[in-house]
Amino acid sequence: MLLTAGGVTSPAGFLAGGVAAGIKASGALDLGILVSERPALVAAAFTQHALPAPPVVLTRERVARGRARAVIVNSGNANAATGAAGLADARAMARFLAERLSIPEAEALVASTGVIGVRLPLAAIAAAIPQLPLAPDGGHAFARAILTTDTRPKEAAVRIVLPGRTVTIGGCAKGAGMIHPNLATMLAFFTTDAPLDLAWLQATFRQTVNDTFNLIDVDGDTSTNDTVLLLANGLAGGPPIAGGEDGALFAAGLRRLAEHLARAIVQDAEGATKLIEVRVSGAPSREAARAIARTVAGSLMVKTAVHGNDPNWGRIYGAAGNAGVPIDERTLTIAIGNVLVFRHGQPQAYDHPAAVAALQGSEVVIALDLGAGSAAATAWGCNLSEQYVTLNSVYTT
Amino acid sequence: MLLTAGGVTSPAGFLAGGVAAGIKASGALDLGILVSERPALVAAAFTQHALPAPPVVLTRERVARGRARAVIVNSGNANAATGAAGLADARAMARFLAERLSIPEAEALVASTGVIGVRLPLAAIAAAIPQLPLAPDGGHAFARAILTTDTRPKEAAVRIVLPGRTVTIGGCAKGAGMIHPNLATMLAFFTTDAPLDLAWLQATFRQTVNDTFNLIDVDGDTSTNDTVLLLANGLAGGPPIAGGEDGALFAAGLRRLAEHLARAIVQDAEGATKLIEVRVSGAPSREAARAIARTVAGSLMVKTAVHGNDPNWGRIYGAAGNAGVPIDERTLTIAIGNVLVFRHGQPQAYDHPAAVAALQGSEVVIALDLGAGSAAATAWGCNLSEQYVTLNSVYTT
Repeated sequence: MLLTAGGVTSPAGFLAGGVAAGIKASGALDLGILVSERPALVAAAFTQHALPAPPVVLTRERVARGRARAVIVNSGNANAATGAAGLADARAMARFLAERLSIPEAEALVASTGVIGVRLPLAAIAAAIPQLPLAPDGGHAFARAILTTDTRPKEAAVRIVLPGRTVTIGGCAKGAGMIHPNLATMLAFFTTDAPLDLAWLQATFRQTVNDTFNLIDVDGDTSTNDTVLLLANGLAGGPPIAGGEDGALFAAGLRRLAEHLARAIVQDAEGATKLIEVRVSGAPSREAARAIARTVAGSLMVKTAVHGNDPNWGRIYGAAGNAGVPIDERTLTIAIGNVLVFRHGQPQAYDHPAAVAALQGSEVVIALDLGAGSAAATAWGCNLSEQYVTLNSVYTT
Repeated sequence: MLLTAGGVTSPAGFLAGGVAAGIKASGALDLGILVSERPALVAAAFTQHALPAPPVVLTRERVARGRARAVIVNSGNANAATGAAGLADARAMARFLAERLSIPEAEALVASTGVIGVRLPLAAIAAAIPQLPLAPDGGHAFARAILTTDTRPKEAAVRIVLPGRTVTIGGCAKGAGMIHPNLATMLAFFTTDAPLDLAWLQATFRQTVNDTFNLIDVDGDTSTNDTVLLLANGLAGGPPIAGGEDGALFAAGLRRLAEHLARAIVQDAEGATKLIEVRVSGAPSREAARAIARTVAGSLMVKTAVHGNDPNWGRIYGAAGNAGVPIDERTLTIAIGNVLVFRHGQPQAYDHPAAVAALQGSEVVIALDLGAGSAAATAWGCNLSEQYVTLNSVYTT
């Protein structure tokens, strides 16, 4: 199955749109609504932050029922570190949404991203909601309305041909770069017209998020507002997918789309010019593979070496050993691109120009095989540039 | 008790020295020996890295007996990722040391720091060892010989007046900055002429290392070679210290010296111009306080905000919540220097110029009170500068 142009309104029965509500000083789009024309199932994943923002608290509570109809998202203000007042604001924002759409309040979800510690401009939001254009091709406006420091919207769709029916999944995301005064947030929204079994969807969604959004690293920080949501309205018809061949195809499509959006977030990270894909194989367990892949992808040593096109494999070796996972050097192999630099405990006399060339592209692959099992995982990071530091230390207030 | 000028040869009965053995291409000192004239107790702490370098493997095995006489340290080559051959090299280096000093091989320790994945130039080391000048004032040469990318040696001593006797502790350390092609290592060596009970010493040493060297963060990476050693020869005389008032005084002196050296490592980190001291109080447990202090001190968001003199407290708040420790926002207070920016869940209307001024000094204090107990911890980090990225991404091979 191939990714196609499209986004959250590609599946049947979804409307979306965005408007400039004045939350961002720039006058850019900063308020978006995504709605399913029919009641929908919902699956979600949220930040593990100890101080989740009020919109996360509210939405987490509401998705527990497994049904939702719409989500309203603002950028420019995270509604975080705002306490009980912030929770009341999030509730009010959801209520305005429910009123606009005439849906039960309990099925109206919210997400916010932007500056921390400032109350939402609730009056401006209330005034903008009735004006917000909702359309079956409004996914692009929605994708733009959720951006903060991203340089471009990130959206795509995938069409899955099942025996007797075709289902579509659409998605969009915003990035994880940070710039003052924002603590950037990862937000991603998926829609599908596939009929799905709720329990199966939730398990599949959790696994997909773990393998994609939870394996990207820009700067090691988790925001107070991270939210990933999927709405499934079943409009494609037929029996609910709950596994089997249809389930495998649906899961593969969702995974493909989620990986695309997760990679797009890393590629658009502040100051980043390269995507670093860290592939770990031969691990004793999936958890071990994940931990090592993520640690290598997040290592400043590795990020700066890649930035400088420096095939300094000692840094990869060094980072791998910091994942809290036992590694046997005698079976460890490390490659940069296709260049084997360390094999079974022995530094290799490698082709240095080829390794440098492998680091010069916009996508750098680092592969580690532990020789200790059959589990694997891939994580994605980016180079750390002087520009990242400059962007994040600019004094702006 | 006050810190004084001095180092590892300040206590009675220690000799040290350094020589240029040709391991570093620069011709700088790169081989040091520290020896106690009398048999000594030893306490030690090592890297938690999954792939500890051969000198760590050997020294960790030897210190288990609790007795040691001397340590030989080279800079310029970490003898890491060198496998069984590297372990044989570390053993040979220790054997040369034992032969030079006519001590049991089992009491000869080794440490290495420098490039990863390259065999030690053992012949050069063997040739240099007999020439290495050992003297009762050789601590400074030793402190210089262990440096890699540090810009200055780090050493000091503390004199402790106990009822009826005076004991001295000396120490030196090398830094944690990284530069290609080195994976920098934290090494620290302590000596004392205090007579000590071994079990008490080991417990006290472990606690001290946990509260100092284990609470500094330059870039989140742990090296394959980190080693902290203390040799105690008892030459000051009197009964062994095993607690009580003498123990409290000795522990306070050791802590003072270790904190000084740990801070000196951070202050000399690559590209760093500011020390960030993160004080966490009011925590439900010591572990919770440590985790939050360390996470805030290590956060790129906080490091870049401090670099830019930007009192962006949302980043401190954001980092604190990423420590894996529950926090109740309603009792959380955050201060930058003496400026209260967040109190009991409420952003404060703070004195902005005063907060900027607090960030402009060479030592920045960030304080968090959780209002949830009486445990506390302090961690030390540094600002992240463009220069750090440049230094660590320079292509040099």
